[in-house]
Amino acid sequence: MALNPQYEEIGKGFVQQYYQLFDNPTTRTTLMNFYNAETSFMTFEGQQIQGSGKILEKLQSLTFQKINRIFTSVDCQPMFDGGVLINVLGRLQCDDDPPHAYTQIFVLKPVGTSFYCAHDIFRLNIHDTA
Amino acid sequence: MALNPQYEEIGKGFVQQYYQLFDNPTTRTTLMNFYNAETSFMTFEGQQIQGSGKILEKLQSLTFQKINRIFTSVDCQPMFDGGVLINVLGRLQCDDDPPHAYTQIFVLKPVGTSFYCAHDIFRLNIHDTA
Repeated sequence: MALNPQYEEIGKGFVQQYYQLFDNPTTRTTLMNFYNAETSFMTFEGQQIQGSGKILEKLQSLTFQKINRIFTSVDCQPMFDGGVLINVLGRLQCDDDPPHAYTQIFVLKPVGTSFYCAHDIFRLNIHDTA
Repeated sequence: MALNPQYEEIGKGFVQQYYQLFDNPTTRTTLMNFYNAETSFMTFEGQQIQGSGKILEKLQSLTFQKINRIFTSVDCQPMFDGGVLINVLGRLQCDDDPPHAYTQIFVLKPVGTSFYCAHDIFRLNIHDTA
């Protein structure tokens, strides 16, 4: 395997697609298709779960209807198995909650000509309310 | 290769050791030994560099003497090549600058019985001055 020279487009394209589906409550649960049934890890505010079934349960538990999201930065790095490491920094407002800074990391792994999300770590920065 | 059941201790131990060396200006440049001469990637505030030689130059360019650092969260996930994905959220104050939130991601890869840092992404959250 080797570095994918398109890592930047792949990473930024994934981020755009991911949040478009996430921010719409009618499509949020379809995100489970990005994860592997057994091997994908998600850490959501410190809670670690594994496999797309458990990840689906977590997505179903997120009931907010309206999300305002701003990206501060999206950094991508190529990985030597052909994957992509992505770091998103942004600002997030759910329904009537105050806006918070957040960070989300994704590791995409190649499978055939496509990718799945092998690792996902999400954290709100609750000390930041600006 | 398989998941390393000690991923949490490995990740948190690395973070502690890394910042202890980073925060002391007399040991900061020794961090280059954590990176591979050719394959390691660092993205520092959006600037991507590769290889421990360039990473050493970056470390040498960071001239602040006094760092106050607080960890908000350290999340670790095991990787299927035996590596560890680490997400650090924290707060950082360099010399007389105002404190800022920051995020840093590390991917550790196994080499023999040890690890090296294959990926490193650092971002200050400059919108947050609290």
